[in-house]
Amino acid sequence: MSIQNVSLNLNVRGLGKSATLAINERVAELQKAGREIYSFGLGQSPFPVPQCVVNALQKHAHEKDYLPVQGLPQLREAVAEFHRREDHVNIQQENVMIGPGSKELMFLLQLAFYGDILIPAPCWVSYIPQAKIIGRKVTMIETAYKNRWTLSPQALEAQCLEENDVDKPRLLILNYPSNPYGDGNTVEELMQIAEVARKYNIIILSDEIYGQTNHQGKHISIARYYPEGTIISSGLSKWCGAGGWRLGTFSFPASLRWLLDALVVVASETYTSVSAPIQYASVVAFRGGDEINEYLLHSRRILNALGKWIVQQLQDAKVRIHPVEGAFYIFPDFEHYRQALLEVNIKSSTELCERILEDTGVAALPGSSFGRSKHELNLRMAYVNFDGEKALLASKKVPLDQPLDAEFLTQHCALVVTGINRLIDWLKQL
Amino acid sequence: MSIQNVSLNLNVRGLGKSATLAINERVAELQKAGREIYSFGLGQSPFPVPQCVVNALQKHAHEKDYLPVQGLPQLREAVAEFHRREDHVNIQQENVMIGPGSKELMFLLQLAFYGDILIPAPCWVSYIPQAKIIGRKVTMIETAYKNRWTLSPQALEAQCLEENDVDKPRLLILNYPSNPYGDGNTVEELMQIAEVARKYNIIILSDEIYGQTNHQGKHISIARYYPEGTIISSGLSKWCGAGGWRLGTFSFPASLRWLLDALVVVASETYTSVSAPIQYASVVAFRGGDEINEYLLHSRRILNALGKWIVQQLQDAKVRIHPVEGAFYIFPDFEHYRQALLEVNIKSSTELCERILEDTGVAALPGSSFGRSKHELNLRMAYVNFDGEKALLASKKVPLDQPLDAEFLTQHCALVVTGINRLIDWLKQL
Repeated sequence: MSIQNVSLNLNVRGLGKSATLAINERVAELQKAGREIYSFGLGQSPFPVPQCVVNALQKHAHEKDYLPVQGLPQLREAVAEFHRREDHVNIQQENVMIGPGSKELMFLLQLAFYGDILIPAPCWVSYIPQAKIIGRKVTMIETAYKNRWTLSPQALEAQCLEENDVDKPRLLILNYPSNPYGDGNTVEELMQIAEVARKYNIIILSDEIYGQTNHQGKHISIARYYPEGTIISSGLSKWCGAGGWRLGTFSFPASLRWLLDALVVVASETYTSVSAPIQYASVVAFRGGDEINEYLLHSRRILNALGKWIVQQLQDAKVRIHPVEGAFYIFPDFEHYRQALLEVNIKSSTELCERILEDTGVAALPGSSFGRSKHELNLRMAYVNFDGEKALLASKKVPLDQPLDAEFLTQHCALVVTGINRLIDWLKQL
Repeated sequence: MSIQNVSLNLNVRGLGKSATLAINERVAELQKAGREIYSFGLGQSPFPVPQCVVNALQKHAHEKDYLPVQGLPQLREAVAEFHRREDHVNIQQENVMIGPGSKELMFLLQLAFYGDILIPAPCWVSYIPQAKIIGRKVTMIETAYKNRWTLSPQALEAQCLEENDVDKPRLLILNYPSNPYGDGNTVEELMQIAEVARKYNIIILSDEIYGQTNHQGKHISIARYYPEGTIISSGLSKWCGAGGWRLGTFSFPASLRWLLDALVVVASETYTSVSAPIQYASVVAFRGGDEINEYLLHSRRILNALGKWIVQQLQDAKVRIHPVEGAFYIFPDFEHYRQALLEVNIKSSTELCERILEDTGVAALPGSSFGRSKHELNLRMAYVNFDGEKALLASKKVPLDQPLDAEFLTQHCALVVTGINRLIDWLKQL
């Protein structure tokens, strides 16, 4: 035994860095070696933080006090009001919790809650490693391409009935608009899921961090149909362009106060409270107003046009893909090319991912990082590799009754457009 | 079973809020009820964030990118250079990790490391609940008033020999200048502790968050004597007045790379990275320079004068207390008054704390919150309840060769002085 001898928690040992973060470093290496890269890896908003929010941070730069663990009261009120206004869900400020990113809050939730975790796959990369670190049991619920990868209410109920203990405490993590597939359940399906959840007393963590990026501005929270059992997760990272600021929010129903209280206790022994200047600045973001609305309008318009164009190109190339409704992700499936890919020795999503990067410079992530079988041939691609600030300015110059056409996209989202074209050319030569 | 049924991790259930944070809320209640309170509870620096650091935050308010999990490279370099400059320890930037407060980093360390945790008591309030949440075994090592509450190297060795397995992986958490007692081991003792640690391959987490608040500016890191096994913990919260900003640092030796790597993995699945604008601003703080040096000089001068005055008053009143060397805490012990206190039915530090608050308005924390037996009669008091900004300005007007006398303290630290006087008056009437 020496100081070099590794003595690590087995739940932590062998875990890699989060896949979406690791890709960023890999791409940087290739670029350093002079390779032209079309990055579809890291899911960061391409847009800047709205100027009014940046101004608010400057104004509050001197704030130095430790804020309450649960969060700055006026920020909690702004978040509650945001959900009442945008989601028509009756959230109260005393049931809102602020964290250094919603990822951290999800970790605390998995740590504090004692029960099974249900996750429909494909899903975001961090839910499963979080459960592993804590040593919690995760049950993956299968979805299918034909169901637009969304959770079916029937599959959820079947999962509850499969075990002898229907009363077992369970936490379902829903995420929509989805990372990795940019889509979500229909309203009717959400209502059915709510019904199943109510029947089996399932707590739903509804990860709606992309809610405001719904391309039509028509996000519907499942909390409308299951208010007593839904925790809504949101934050500044996606719709407000402030991923690097690290501010996430959980909004609880009063009936889950016991769970909120436990999270606050764990927070008080871990991160203490979220950075004070960041919290003061975030009040402006959640309060909204004309500047934020215009920012959202044009962000959505650009993402909508680009998403539609990409889906069309890929469908034309016989890639299996559904229309996207929000966020900035696609989850194309190359099942149609299975035989051709097999002939060049590609049998898994990881091999597919590596070969595409090598041959075309297009950097995506394998579907296996999102909870799908490695034998499936799907990828997650984030279409955010463009200058969002310039694109917003350009969009403001195009009258709102005109679409942002292929010419606009070629000019303002050039690397995304070229990357998609290179991918399609690669498929054609298989 | 319904959604209201509590289903919590037993490691979390029943834990209260961190004691230092809870006192703040309690004091607020009393003040609301019109009571005059002399707050010695929350250990927050009384001084503002230096203006050059605030300016840097304003300048970087627009930074929106997710930074590397381990931290912004130029900040890691500034932190490494800080430890080389201030502590004469050869830290490299690739071995520095940035977190949202050092408390969070300590939690991740306890989570990732697999071994026993050794903690000398009295100790900071959060080490033990962190271990409880994770389900890790904690061994408290006794200290005594006569040893200035510091860890004795002999007690550390005795603990290692007490168990049959001397090779067991162990993590010792040292903290000095100490919260709760404002003192630390002598250099000779640090060298002996280092020797014991080397003999038994103990990893030391040296929590030196108060290092720069050493009243003489003469902090000595134990890493100088045990570089290969020491992790130095620091951050902006105490010497830079920015507790509410939430930025902490861990600096590892190259030999503990395996542990750093594991922390980075867990960080990538929890907080992701520390707020970008905060990290950019912190570079200025760790780089130091004339403005920071002057700020530190006057901060230390004020804390030194106030600490010395308080210790003198309490010693004169037969309270057991040692001189303080850094930070802004005292840990007075009222053993001399045991009989008198017993006569008014005070038998524990909690009862002592509550009665003093009730009778005098002086808000302190019980020694039992810091790992001491509840039957001991000690309190932790933070002497920070004054306007640090005004005090700094006033100190700059007093020539450096003149001491800051009782008149200065009465004028600029009025609530602290009055609170101590009220406490002493209370003791006299017992």
